[in-house]
Amino acid sequence: MKAGIIGLGAMGAPMARNLARTGYLSGVWNRTYSRAEAAARELSVTCAHDPAELARLVDIMFVCVSADTDVLEVMQAMQPGLNSDHVVIDVSTVSSDTARRAARMLAHSGAAFLDAPVSGGVEGARKGTLAMMVGGDETVLNRVRPLLEAITGRIVHMGEVGAGQGAKAVNQVMAAGINQAVTEALAFGQAQGLDMKKLVDVISGGAAGNWFLEHRGLTMTQGLFAPGFKLALHHKDLKICRQMMIGLGVHAELVDKTLKEYADLMEQGCGDEDISALYRLKKPQ
Amino acid sequence: MKAGIIGLGAMGAPMARNLARTGYLSGVWNRTYSRAEAAARELSVTCAHDPAELARLVDIMFVCVSADTDVLEVMQAMQPGLNSDHVVIDVSTVSSDTARRAARMLAHSGAAFLDAPVSGGVEGARKGTLAMMVGGDETVLNRVRPLLEAITGRIVHMGEVGAGQGAKAVNQVMAAGINQAVTEALAFGQAQGLDMKKLVDVISGGAAGNWFLEHRGLTMTQGLFAPGFKLALHHKDLKICRQMMIGLGVHAELVDKTLKEYADLMEQGCGDEDISALYRLKKPQ
Repeated sequence: MKAGIIGLGAMGAPMARNLARTGYLSGVWNRTYSRAEAAARELSVTCAHDPAELARLVDIMFVCVSADTDVLEVMQAMQPGLNSDHVVIDVSTVSSDTARRAARMLAHSGAAFLDAPVSGGVEGARKGTLAMMVGGDETVLNRVRPLLEAITGRIVHMGEVGAGQGAKAVNQVMAAGINQAVTEALAFGQAQGLDMKKLVDVISGGAAGNWFLEHRGLTMTQGLFAPGFKLALHHKDLKICRQMMIGLGVHAELVDKTLKEYADLMEQGCGDEDISALYRLKKPQ
Repeated sequence: MKAGIIGLGAMGAPMARNLARTGYLSGVWNRTYSRAEAAARELSVTCAHDPAELARLVDIMFVCVSADTDVLEVMQAMQPGLNSDHVVIDVSTVSSDTARRAARMLAHSGAAFLDAPVSGGVEGARKGTLAMMVGGDETVLNRVRPLLEAITGRIVHMGEVGAGQGAKAVNQVMAAGINQAVTEALAFGQAQGLDMKKLVDVISGGAAGNWFLEHRGLTMTQGLFAPGFKLALHHKDLKICRQMMIGLGVHAELVDKTLKEYADLMEQGCGDEDISALYRLKKPQ
């Protein structure tokens, strides 16, 4: 199997490296073409001129972009190069609806589609320790599993097309709430004058322990907000989640609060910072 | 060194077992005397008739009770048995003020005091994997460290008397926020009809991963709320935290929301359930 990847951003680039390391990667494409050229040189693979050309080179197409419209545009653009032997795997975070629309678009060519969003940050993408939530046909998943395992060992089949994005939406809501929890609590610790390094260390080992505290706790209290996961992107995801939650009639109070606070921060020019920049609004004055 | 322990509840009993296993435990006392007798028989140690008698038997006194007043009463009651060779270690969760008052009360007898609250649930107490946050003199801490290591390997010296409880207060605030995050997010997943076992498994491996999700995620969605950590006790802790936060001028919005919702649940008779019973208010209808 030969793989191509579209989208070489903060998450796509390290995934491409891991695919290249195992020998699966044959080509890349990126909207900002210079980035694709640089990656192709680094990884000694082909730099395609458009998504359809990349599709003709490979069997398995990975897509790792930011927005729902980007995913649909890329699907459209690769169509001329696809046939029924192709599997398209979208690792972007978009809505379940977009996943289902993408699958329907590909049905013309006979190509199979999996939605396979991931969580675990840029660290997880680099180290190959992401959590991957897969929606789509399980036989197809098993066929491409060796390639997915080049990206991460933690792969869970959630159900039909869209179920991967459904699980990722839950993940994004939980991440918002945890951001609220960690920022409010650490501000309290800093106001007490506690040693923040020791505090983060000890709490990480107990019943309030969490990934976000371990990876972003200390830096946020030092005023360091390099992404990581850009606040404006989480804001985009949470807007989609909120729509889904309202539709299902479940509480979305933490999501509402986080959307409002992220919007305030974006207005202050912090949209490109890590989501831990929420600490700016919580830290002791 | 010989140790005694006062308070054989959900956390105290497994700690007593771990102290006994390493040969340090000499005696126990408990307000409900029958519980002390049962533990003394099981662990082949002395059952003291009152805290002062226990103090005369041992050098190191552990205290593991529920409320601030309980801690101060126990300190008072053990006074006649204490001398300057004693170290009293309070592993209960109380306020930093109570820790400082306890230390002052003991100063008469010359006994040393450490506040050493723990986090990690009943599972952590059983397995010896608690996070312990210690306030008090570091020389004293190093003297009793072998005993503390019988209880857990993760011991962090946070500062002066009261700093252990200060760190634990931060832990309790974070735990409240995480409870909000996990319950709101899992309700969203259940409303989508996702497989909850797979969902908890995959999210636990990503950037929203946390102890509470791993240990209480699945059971809460099954309507199982056996403690664990009793909701009414967390409510008690959060009231203390809220006072401290208001005094320091930091945001306490998640704490306020959690206090209100816990109070509603306590009114419905759920105070003795695990804190994950918050899911009762969030689950899809």
